[in-house]
Amino acid sequence: MAPLMHIGERRTVLRLLTNGVYVITARSGGRCGAATITWVSQASFRPPLLMAAIRKESNVLACLRESGVAALHVLGRGQQEMARLFFAPTAAAPGAINGEPVGEGRTGAPVLERAPAYVECVTRLVLDEPGDHALVILEVVEAVQREPVEPLTLAATPWEYGG
Amino acid sequence: MAPLMHIGERRTVLRLLTNGVYVITARSGGRCGAATITWVSQASFRPPLLMAAIRKESNVLACLRESGVAALHVLGRGQQEMARLFFAPTAAAPGAINGEPVGEGRTGAPVLERAPAYVECVTRLVLDEPGDHALVILEVVEAVQREPVEPLTLAATPWEYGG
Repeated sequence: MAPLMHIGERRTVLRLLTNGVYVITARSGGRCGAATITWVSQASFRPPLLMAAIRKESNVLACLRESGVAALHVLGRGQQEMARLFFAPTAAAPGAINGEPVGEGRTGAPVLERAPAYVECVTRLVLDEPGDHALVILEVVEAVQREPVEPLTLAATPWEYGG
Repeated sequence: MAPLMHIGERRTVLRLLTNGVYVITARSGGRCGAATITWVSQASFRPPLLMAAIRKESNVLACLRESGVAALHVLGRGQQEMARLFFAPTAAAPGAINGEPVGEGRTGAPVLERAPAYVECVTRLVLDEPGDHALVILEVVEAVQREPVEPLTLAATPWEYGG
């Protein structure tokens, strides 16, 4: 089909899609990955699956592919600055990633200590095609809510990621 | 891994994920499908892809698989009742689906006349596994915004779809 649409209008409309703001983490051997992502949704009740689109060059994609596990963290409305920390390349230190304290989850994935809720997941499928992000299907095997939370949404931040 | 997590806590945490409310439509020959869906996200910038998880038994899945095209509509905050119309099985009449007026988009997909914004898409991939919803990858080939809109989000409705 001929590309008749206006790119500006496409961007405008795609930015009307509603997304949350999450931090995904994984570890493989001595390598850690953590990234703020927004292209995430549940994809199945049984089994409980999530779908996430993740930058192909990211450390976290390499780690969740190799280790087969990852943690996805929900942030609260007041935690925009925590999300911003994971825009930067991963810098791991003992007990911390990008300055944020981390523990180890039941799957072995790194878990952010200050996230109000998170799930731990097993990697079920990684599709490298057909887009510029990898499409990752994750099965939820653990879920923890530490405290009540109003989730941080992309619309509540000054950021855009779509188009 | 042993299923140690509490199902109730899993539901609570998965319902913290942020989603919009959309109506997806497709037509194949004389058959129409339309459904309200919430498990949708962008998945790639280049090409512009969406990922959507859709009930396997739905008319709209059969139609977008057969015809290879679909339209995804963004609704406004005031259009919860329009979303509710498409919880019901598809009932098409000339110029209408489930009582809502429809036209024909550039791809041939049915377009809801009262949706403030929509995209038309070509079906790139349908994964029937591994979940209880089909995972559909759609490439955006047309985007139209008819009027300014504050998008309807699942959190702004009394509905839940997650867990």
